[in-house]
Amino acid sequence: MASEPRRVLHDMFEAAVAAASPSLCLPRFLPKPPKGRTVVVGAGKAAAAMASTVEKHWQGPLEGLVVTRYGHGAPCERIEVIEAAHPVPDLSGLEAAQRILDKVRGLAPEDLVLCLMSGGASSLLALPAEGIALEDKQAINRSLLRSGAHIGEMNCVRKHLSAIKGGKLAVAAAPARVVSLIISDVPGDDLSVIGSGPTVPDMTTRADAIAVLEKYRIEAPRSVIRHLEATQAQTSKFGNSSFANVANVCVARPQDAMEAAARIAHDAGFRPLILGNAIEGEARDVALVHAGIARQVAAFGQPIELPCALISGGETTVTVRGSGRGGRNAEFLLSLAVALNGQSGIAALAADTDGIDGSEDNAGAFLLPDTISRAAKAGLNLNASLANNDAYTIFAGLDDLLVTGPTRTNVNDFRAILVYERS
Amino acid sequence: MASEPRRVLHDMFEAAVAAASPSLCLPRFLPKPPKGRTVVVGAGKAAAAMASTVEKHWQGPLEGLVVTRYGHGAPCERIEVIEAAHPVPDLSGLEAAQRILDKVRGLAPEDLVLCLMSGGASSLLALPAEGIALEDKQAINRSLLRSGAHIGEMNCVRKHLSAIKGGKLAVAAAPARVVSLIISDVPGDDLSVIGSGPTVPDMTTRADAIAVLEKYRIEAPRSVIRHLEATQAQTSKFGNSSFANVANVCVARPQDAMEAAARIAHDAGFRPLILGNAIEGEARDVALVHAGIARQVAAFGQPIELPCALISGGETTVTVRGSGRGGRNAEFLLSLAVALNGQSGIAALAADTDGIDGSEDNAGAFLLPDTISRAAKAGLNLNASLANNDAYTIFAGLDDLLVTGPTRTNVNDFRAILVYERS
Repeated sequence: MASEPRRVLHDMFEAAVAAASPSLCLPRFLPKPPKGRTVVVGAGKAAAAMASTVEKHWQGPLEGLVVTRYGHGAPCERIEVIEAAHPVPDLSGLEAAQRILDKVRGLAPEDLVLCLMSGGASSLLALPAEGIALEDKQAINRSLLRSGAHIGEMNCVRKHLSAIKGGKLAVAAAPARVVSLIISDVPGDDLSVIGSGPTVPDMTTRADAIAVLEKYRIEAPRSVIRHLEATQAQTSKFGNSSFANVANVCVARPQDAMEAAARIAHDAGFRPLILGNAIEGEARDVALVHAGIARQVAAFGQPIELPCALISGGETTVTVRGSGRGGRNAEFLLSLAVALNGQSGIAALAADTDGIDGSEDNAGAFLLPDTISRAAKAGLNLNASLANNDAYTIFAGLDDLLVTGPTRTNVNDFRAILVYERS
Repeated sequence: MASEPRRVLHDMFEAAVAAASPSLCLPRFLPKPPKGRTVVVGAGKAAAAMASTVEKHWQGPLEGLVVTRYGHGAPCERIEVIEAAHPVPDLSGLEAAQRILDKVRGLAPEDLVLCLMSGGASSLLALPAEGIALEDKQAINRSLLRSGAHIGEMNCVRKHLSAIKGGKLAVAAAPARVVSLIISDVPGDDLSVIGSGPTVPDMTTRADAIAVLEKYRIEAPRSVIRHLEATQAQTSKFGNSSFANVANVCVARPQDAMEAAARIAHDAGFRPLILGNAIEGEARDVALVHAGIARQVAAFGQPIELPCALISGGETTVTVRGSGRGGRNAEFLLSLAVALNGQSGIAALAADTDGIDGSEDNAGAFLLPDTISRAAKAGLNLNASLANNDAYTIFAGLDDLLVTGPTRTNVNDFRAILVYERS
């Protein structure tokens, strides 16, 4: 069993990512080509891979523009791929968003807009509503990211400060038909939340957006407050009729990734148990609960008999208090390491399916039964590093990072804990 | 199903408490009476009930003194029962601890000390080591309780500041035989942690205690620091030979309570799934994970098919930031309520098996599918109350508190979530 758990965990992660890979999940959802033009637009960490898949399978003429995160690009022949900043938007994303809006305007009823959306699109499609400075929108976005607000709350604010989100892209594309193909990275696969729903009617209100800013004590300039009041009047004009010619289709979900990983675990002899595909909460506390469940397996064979694989997905949050390095998956794993304190027969992986944990170069990391003893030998202080949000440094020091590079898709975080020895 | 879930949850809680009730779990562990005297000592929320059970089943002479929390007492005939403050120690506990130490000193080898330990004993057996003022020990204890430190960390510090904990009671009782009957309320049922192990050799070090104080930035007076240095030398003198005549026996564990509740759920038609008997973490985040699992059941029939009962135990922590009322179980439940946002077909209970959630008069509370809508009607703002640590006020306002009074036992928190409708 010595090196086996690490290999199984790695295989599970690869299967999870593959389940959401555009080349595998997208083709069967492609609509028939229209009589008129087909304009492909899109945004997200999977945008380049989705565009490339569309090109490969599309019968007929094609043009368009998608925006993805720096490093997540891949050349396409007919669709232009632009790279931009994530999670804090930059001018490149701003320009791409403006060009996307321009591209879908003035189309005819026989034209088709094929919209390719995936996780990260919220930041990448950053076009402030009229009257709002990009700097103000960026500042608020930075504050949101550090506030501990969850993705739904962040997107609510973003929608109301945007010229393209919350259904405004679909409104701009009318009277053309719009088909959005969406890879979900949000709890419950709510399509209005993914990329802040550029083709989905906005059901949130100005009051919701202001409530989020107040909840996390985020100061907004007067121009933003003024706009939030105007937005309300504007969105209410949309009505549902604007969306009669719009189809929003989910092509891959976190659940699909969990199930794929579960099959790998099963084939490797570990009973899979999917705890949830949308587990939220502060990363270090989410880890404590996972540790408690893993210990229960080892001690009592509950909630499932070992050898088993506990699987969960969803996006944890990190309330940054220290000055260290590392994304939420590394922080989860470090907290898990401290809680399990070297208990034998437990190994784990936590990684972002997009290949990038936070803003580092790793997808995630491995926790092995000897992590604690190797850390002690290396003079690494796990408690201090956890307090300083410095998990990356620990796992880098132990050579236990999982580095994949951008996977060009995103179905959120993936966590797996193998328990294979009774305590 | 309308009123059914609440009744089932209530029955599950009662079964959990009954499984740890001294009258049911204690008698079969009683040793044979000795040739010499039998001195009963003890501390904890179950002390009076344990003493009463011993009196009922003991053959032969008996004398002694136990200390329990205010309101948890019950009259005994031969064993004196003293009430004292918890979780912050007071003079009554101090005096009781001193008298307990005096009672076990000077016994003979043919005498027996019957020590009855249960949760809460750490605070109730508060006798500062020589040279430490009670006020200093109390101040540190208060800081620990508000720091977010977990019970193991708190007890490590308490042991090193105590004249009776960390094995010192057993050392005082030598050469008499010592039998400790212990109701566990700690993760992994580590007997050295329960009541800070008055009859268990102390394996923690001065450095551990100082590390806890530093981790949570708790300032300690110079007398405490000076003592912590001296303690180390003192405990190392004990050796294992002092404990050759000591038996520490666990008579009830959180796991027993979980299993008893699981049987009730099963009989009521809900598949029980015990997630863990020792789940730790910040209460509101532990709730988010539970919410994620409950939603997964409702959406996908994972990790178990509905109708089901998700069961967990252990002690969460609350890092107090607001000024509201409520213990950790109410806070857990309020966070769960906010996360589930009125999802139908999910009901839950979170309560302390000792009958007192924190320092309020309730054991815990119920969450029902209509909690959100009733709260809205009553003008209660759940998000604001959660931010203000004011969960008690919410559940009191909804008439959804669970009030049992002191149960006179303690196997830590009990949480159950019934999921009975597919989403």
